[in-house]
Amino acid sequence: MTPTTPTLLVLDADPPPRLGRLTGRARIVHTDAAGLAGRLPAADVLLVWDFTSHAVREAWPGGGPRPRWVHTASAGVDHLMCPELAASDTVVTNARGIFDQPIAEYVAALVLAVAKDLPRTLEHQRERVWRHRETRRVAGTRACVVGSGPIGRAIARTLRALDVTTALVGRVPRTGVHGPGDLDRLISRADWVIAAAPLTEQTYGMFDARRFGVMQPSAVFVNVGRGQLVDEEALAGALAGRWIAGAALDVFAAEPLPAGSPLWDLPGLIVSPHMSGDTVGWRDELGAQFVELYERWAAGRPLVNVVDKQRGYVPGH
Amino acid sequence: MTPTTPTLLVLDADPPPRLGRLTGRARIVHTDAAGLAGRLPAADVLLVWDFTSHAVREAWPGGGPRPRWVHTASAGVDHLMCPELAASDTVVTNARGIFDQPIAEYVAALVLAVAKDLPRTLEHQRERVWRHRETRRVAGTRACVVGSGPIGRAIARTLRALDVTTALVGRVPRTGVHGPGDLDRLISRADWVIAAAPLTEQTYGMFDARRFGVMQPSAVFVNVGRGQLVDEEALAGALAGRWIAGAALDVFAAEPLPAGSPLWDLPGLIVSPHMSGDTVGWRDELGAQFVELYERWAAGRPLVNVVDKQRGYVPGH
Repeated sequence: MTPTTPTLLVLDADPPPRLGRLTGRARIVHTDAAGLAGRLPAADVLLVWDFTSHAVREAWPGGGPRPRWVHTASAGVDHLMCPELAASDTVVTNARGIFDQPIAEYVAALVLAVAKDLPRTLEHQRERVWRHRETRRVAGTRACVVGSGPIGRAIARTLRALDVTTALVGRVPRTGVHGPGDLDRLISRADWVIAAAPLTEQTYGMFDARRFGVMQPSAVFVNVGRGQLVDEEALAGALAGRWIAGAALDVFAAEPLPAGSPLWDLPGLIVSPHMSGDTVGWRDELGAQFVELYERWAAGRPLVNVVDKQRGYVPGH
Repeated sequence: MTPTTPTLLVLDADPPPRLGRLTGRARIVHTDAAGLAGRLPAADVLLVWDFTSHAVREAWPGGGPRPRWVHTASAGVDHLMCPELAASDTVVTNARGIFDQPIAEYVAALVLAVAKDLPRTLEHQRERVWRHRETRRVAGTRACVVGSGPIGRAIARTLRALDVTTALVGRVPRTGVHGPGDLDRLISRADWVIAAAPLTEQTYGMFDARRFGVMQPSAVFVNVGRGQLVDEEALAGALAGRWIAGAALDVFAAEPLPAGSPLWDLPGLIVSPHMSGDTVGWRDELGAQFVELYERWAAGRPLVNVVDKQRGYVPGH
């Protein structure tokens, strides 16, 4: 290790795999949220491994030098962005690519499970009740996927592979992607409305009472983006009032979802613990992805997965 | 109605839809299992609408004339075949085609639900427990689908659309289909073993202790064919002994599955009530399919979906 070896500060709950590969090329310092503010000034690079933490957003505005590069082991950057970071020269990168296929499969699992009434089948099994029902055919139904980044596009690809007619909605209309102006029309016809957008000022609370009111009574809403995309009280009302047929949430405004939340036993709602993208080996993949980015950075080559800090995501094609 | 109007005998629990279209072209007589034997001699055509009944197999060997054509509103013909029917000139047709896509989707739903650990997620939700787990990626896994008829082929198409490497096994090897000689090798490597074969002398009890022993400890077995393809006791042992990781059965040796069956609460087993092919509108589709066949038959045109009575299914391509 030379005097010029960069300092890599790692904000982690449990230590990331694969960083051993950087031995001799980075001075690795681990910190928890409490230690973050004191260690930021001496760091060249910050790896936000604990992507559930809001510590960066809280510590960043303090005084002193700041890392030149921040990487988060997550697709969303909402948990770390603050005006001071956005206005700085610091480059922010994310884990773009790692979660696309797993989340797409997770959405397909939810769509098919609801169509085939699997939750009720499992209930009946528990009660040793044999009750034949007719279920829904997925082929030929319509989905609207909100979020046109790699995750949204992977979801669309997977649903189309199941012969679901799928529309994608993004911030800006382009080939194969509808703009926000088409959103209400598309969700009013959709059997499946899938939220996979980044959390930004534009998307905060976008699934509100009005939007649930626009959906069909047979529609099912799925959120694998961020909890704050949804007005959870409005969703509860929409389910209770049968404005929509069902919902599945993998993300919540407060995580872990408090044991006292009414969402746990809302009829027609499937609750899962923010796991849609996390298939076996995901931590290794995230670690390897960071190592690759670090090698680029250390060699002075341009980083990839660079977040547009104003928009809050990596601009796509 | 003329004196030559054919008599259509319908074995049904509840009356089939769409038969109104045959008014004036068929003398429709409904019967239950008890009345079947007495009415068979006067029938030109028998429609087996109640496909859960074994009444045909029991009544057919009796004396007197027999219908020239028997249609069953099911894919399998095991419930009605008997040596006397097989040896007769009577043509047997089935509901080939109606169930392919629904069953393929159902299998995809089960595979994805197991991969994504959805049953446990629903258990945790009931207990208001937030417990993140890593799940399996389906893309890149291997499936072996046993049964190369239209249902097996639809399952293979759907799994391949999810990027599952899928092998098909049939009675006779041909392009794209493995023969029985490859079965043990294929199931020994498969993550998902899907039974979708007709019940015949060759397939009865084919999933026995030896075959579950050949499978990987991580393998999941799914049966959407017929219950008797499986030695249920051997499956219970394989699950209890963790020879395989899980199973999902939609069909059983005895249906409805008796409330006292140990299968209801076998760890790792999903029980569903023989519903994989029954999507909304299925009865209408079955009714319309029979009407179309009847119109062919009445016009003297060749029937389609003709079962090879020796083999016990419609020979494919």
